[in-house]
Amino acid sequence: MEFTISTNKKQEFIDITQKIKDIVEKSKTNKGICNIFVPHATAAVTINENADPNLSLDIIEALDDTCSKKVWRHDALDNNAASHIKSAIIGPSETIPISNGELVLGTWQDIFLCEFDGPRKRRIITTIIKE
Amino acid sequence: MEFTISTNKKQEFIDITQKIKDIVEKSKTNKGICNIFVPHATAAVTINENADPNLSLDIIEALDDTCSKKVWRHDALDNNAASHIKSAIIGPSETIPISNGELVLGTWQDIFLCEFDGPRKRRIITTIIKE
Amino acid sequence: MEFTISTNKKQEFIDITQKIKDIVEKSKTNKGICNIFVPHATAAVTINENADPNLSLDIIEALDDTCSKKVWRHDALDNNAASHIKSAIIGPSETIPISNGELVLGTWQDIFLCEFDGPRKRRIITTIIKE
Repeated sequence: MEFTISTNKKQEFIDITQKIKDIVEKSKTNKGICNIFVPHATAAVTINENADPNLSLDIIEALDDTCSKKVWRHDALDNNAASHIKSAIIGPSETIPISNGELVLGTWQDIFLCEFDGPRKRRIITTIIKE
Repeated sequence: MEFTISTNKKQEFIDITQKIKDIVEKSKTNKGICNIFVPHATAAVTINENADPNLSLDIIEALDDTCSKKVWRHDALDNNAASHIKSAIIGPSETIPISNGELVLGTWQDIFLCEFDGPRKRRIITTIIKE
Repeated sequence: MEFTISTNKKQEFIDITQKIKDIVEKSKTNKGICNIFVPHATAAVTINENADPNLSLDIIEALDDTCSKKVWRHDALDNNAASHIKSAIIGPSETIPISNGELVLGTWQDIFLCEFDGPRKRRIITTIIKE
């Protein structure tokens, strides 16, 4: 299954939890895993809390600090080295268990598409494997 | 399969390798993958060396440095933004191959539950998929 | 499936995309996932852009910054704490979807073995699970 998300800012985390839950429900998978993958080198997938939307801004700022110290080689070619570095640190995928027909997420866990070089149209690919 | 671990400190890495190995052995899976997932937004799973227990302290300190520079927005609501940031950087899961009925871990690889906001009771969920 | 790569430097990213694509093709898997795992505590796997080889150098340098600030406890025993920290941040595996018999990678995505403590011989283990 694949869907697209249009991001609106240079950097933002977009909650895709409900979309993934719907895909899992439609698959009628009782037990297994759900792999979520973004085929992009300046985006990523993470799982964290959305109850406080400020938290996403904090995570983005911590990643900014990690890679904002200098001029990067890649910036001479395409001015988005920091976007690639953040994408490598967070990673392009997550694999989540499915149990009793539902995604197993903790109370404070939401799934985010991480945009590090928007606004762009981003693809999200889900693959469900039954146990 | 699910089990719980009670952590004892604000931050610590707890070795769960033997517990995961036992689950894999009981499953009688010859070849496949084992997904390990923590349903928490201030904990994580990592794979690294436990032969020197000091290494976990070094990894925690490096993550402290990554996000200890400022006051975070989320701290006004709940004083654990840094715990969430570390959890996002390390990630809530790992997927490990199973071959010849055993987890394929390198000589220097152990599996850790990473506690970033303890002490708490943490859940670890394992899902085994046969090839 | 397992293959080995001999690295040549203390730190480098080696593109293993074609090797993984060949393994997927030979498996004749129409739809599923491919797990790539390195059984090492000072290496990792990441997915990012190789069109500009400078980008790997930038990612390595950002990770250097993240953990080059101090003397680490583990360095007293074995002078490679920073290698372990980088390995924990990037992680030892990636799981990529397979669709229509091919790995689903974005235009700017290549798969890299990340060497953080070379030169060494490194093992890469792939496990393919059909949907």
